[in-house]
Amino acid sequence: MALVNEHFLKLPSNYLFDDIAKKVNVFKTQNPKKDIISLGIGDVTQPLCPAVIEALHRATNEMSLASTFRGYGPEQGYDFLREAILKNDFFSRSIRLDKDEIFINDGAKSDTGNFQELIRWDNSIAVTDPIYPVYIDSNVMIGRAGTKGEDGRWSNVIYLPCTIENGFKPEIPQQRVDVIYLCYPNNPTGTALSRDELRKWVNYAINNDTLILYDAAYEAYIQHDDVPHSIYEIKGARKVAVEFHSFSKTAGFTGIRCGYTVVPKEVSVATLSGERIQLNPLWHRRQCTKFNGTSYLSQRAAEAIYTAEGRKQVKQTIDYYMQNAQHMKNTLRSIGLKVFGGEDAPYLWVQTPGGMTSWRFFEQLLYNANVVSTPGVGFGPSGEGFIRLTAFGTHERTDEALERIKKFY
Amino acid sequence: MALVNEHFLKLPSNYLFDDIAKKVNVFKTQNPKKDIISLGIGDVTQPLCPAVIEALHRATNEMSLASTFRGYGPEQGYDFLREAILKNDFFSRSIRLDKDEIFINDGAKSDTGNFQELIRWDNSIAVTDPIYPVYIDSNVMIGRAGTKGEDGRWSNVIYLPCTIENGFKPEIPQQRVDVIYLCYPNNPTGTALSRDELRKWVNYAINNDTLILYDAAYEAYIQHDDVPHSIYEIKGARKVAVEFHSFSKTAGFTGIRCGYTVVPKEVSVATLSGERIQLNPLWHRRQCTKFNGTSYLSQRAAEAIYTAEGRKQVKQTIDYYMQNAQHMKNTLRSIGLKVFGGEDAPYLWVQTPGGMTSWRFFEQLLYNANVVSTPGVGFGPSGEGFIRLTAFGTHERTDEALERIKKFY
Repeated sequence: MALVNEHFLKLPSNYLFDDIAKKVNVFKTQNPKKDIISLGIGDVTQPLCPAVIEALHRATNEMSLASTFRGYGPEQGYDFLREAILKNDFFSRSIRLDKDEIFINDGAKSDTGNFQELIRWDNSIAVTDPIYPVYIDSNVMIGRAGTKGEDGRWSNVIYLPCTIENGFKPEIPQQRVDVIYLCYPNNPTGTALSRDELRKWVNYAINNDTLILYDAAYEAYIQHDDVPHSIYEIKGARKVAVEFHSFSKTAGFTGIRCGYTVVPKEVSVATLSGERIQLNPLWHRRQCTKFNGTSYLSQRAAEAIYTAEGRKQVKQTIDYYMQNAQHMKNTLRSIGLKVFGGEDAPYLWVQTPGGMTSWRFFEQLLYNANVVSTPGVGFGPSGEGFIRLTAFGTHERTDEALERIKKFY
Repeated sequence: MALVNEHFLKLPSNYLFDDIAKKVNVFKTQNPKKDIISLGIGDVTQPLCPAVIEALHRATNEMSLASTFRGYGPEQGYDFLREAILKNDFFSRSIRLDKDEIFINDGAKSDTGNFQELIRWDNSIAVTDPIYPVYIDSNVMIGRAGTKGEDGRWSNVIYLPCTIENGFKPEIPQQRVDVIYLCYPNNPTGTALSRDELRKWVNYAINNDTLILYDAAYEAYIQHDDVPHSIYEIKGARKVAVEFHSFSKTAGFTGIRCGYTVVPKEVSVATLSGERIQLNPLWHRRQCTKFNGTSYLSQRAAEAIYTAEGRKQVKQTIDYYMQNAQHMKNTLRSIGLKVFGGEDAPYLWVQTPGGMTSWRFFEQLLYNANVVSTPGVGFGPSGEGFIRLTAFGTHERTDEALERIKKFY
């Protein structure tokens, strides 16, 4: 008989946001007239900018004529987009990369989930805690994470707690680890690392032969000059780091599906016998086999955000969301809540009042203020006692949510 | 140090179509004035049909307004598309499936490559030979295929030869296997199985507790009534089979990226201790973790091919390609070549003349007729001595390619 991959059975049966959606649906069914505002899942609300819309219409028209129709594109993405990325996201920051170090994808979730296929199943991994669940779950599925203990921790995962005490900036691990996941600006805590702070991690990786999987999905929200937009701003990073980017939050592409992954040719891992193997051609081979490229329309849409018009329009929307973040932070602090993040990221990390659990506070906000949040414990053990709020709402709905929370407290 | 997944190193360094592209590029560079016609990679040439174009413009307009903008969709796809699929592809053939047994994807290549994650790495697999390379390569990457021998065969893969002698219809294996990959109408041989022939496979799977991974990407090309469009037309199949569909060839979506996978709730595999585990919730969990849904635009485009207009337009294009297939078959036969397939599939499987190798004939056609084919051996050992031609060209270019081949022979 065919046998199941039993590692899957170790997973909690539901993905965090599935759980939340179910609880919200139960509440909706029981209270059909309540007006619910979601500050939970990190989904955007503002429409695509005009430059992107125009590019989509144009690309659609191309697809309607035999002379301009496009079928299969390169699995790694079209040159027009890879070149726009190189020029705008890297050359402009004095980072030199080659075109074939950029891999266009259908969103960062796929690549952050799939990239671990390239390394041995028994490599040690470290994660900041709390963390985006995909990093751990994708490692569980291949058996790398071990088993889940009663404390919510996986036996083979090294947790790097991000707490109020350390300002949500985890300490460098004492032992060496093979692979570290880092996400800055951080989801879920909304905090960022300065260039000096990130340098410590790169140096640790160089000294310990550690691979850093760096998620830069929120870099477009950075407001402070000393916060790096890419890990490759740090010297030596191209030897040790793979970087994941997404247009989802940068340009409202959550429904369009496009992002990219940077795999510099210098990044290598080892065979058991010590031979060094470049990850770049391995990822190329993986993508050629299990992926057939991103929609041509999505790639033209992404290209458009790098035009002069597109850049301006995208920045306006980011400013719009960051106004929300500022307003949320001020208001929630004014009623006595402890609020972190939201300066260089669209997320706020709010301590639950009176030592309440994350899920309890989630329920209070849902039942009393009809506001959906994300329970921090869903992001890992150190997330207990926090909730995450997102700044992706409209001004009007965000204000309304804040008014309700104020009234309730 | 981080260690590489050494299974990747067993793979031939290039994907088949990469190899072909390189050879063609070398020829182009050396002969810049030659006009090359590709009947190689299975990419379409006809533009998207008007119903799809209209749906894309409409969906783009929705994305331009806050009131109709769509962000993250369900990982498994929107109900509007799943319902259109159920109604048109299954209910119309008296196949009853539930909506949550349909998983929308970004093309069949992703899902045929990823689905093997759900089963143990040491399950035995059988493949028809020749075969679409993704099935084997994705199993190599997890270590399931073993090592590649000098005869081109992987040590842990059971090959089911499709030859002239058996009419490219492989014999049922003598031993039992855990997982079998079947693709009908077949890529690359262009042959099909009748309902009675497919029934034997389903019965084998039921009797041996075998999981069938059934690739139905070419079902829209079926012309004969006794050829099933879905394996679920066969009684009992929903207990043993997962089915992969693609809009790439059905509606020219190779650049749009949309398909779907059917995972009936009855399909189960076992734990080592014998407990049965449904694959449906496992695949749901996998997709929620490592995939974030297909582009909204692509899903609206797919929906449009199920409208009355869309169905008519899609059929016209399929008829167009099948006219090519008929013409190619007749012409190539008239010059003495042995040609198979092309009756219920857009592929022709052509025996090389005089016992020539696949790559040698590929080169002859490229150098002498400037026509690109696909060497059969790239699809597996039993493909040696054949090339695959596709019917996806325009009438004009296909005719021109045939004229050149005729002139050369």
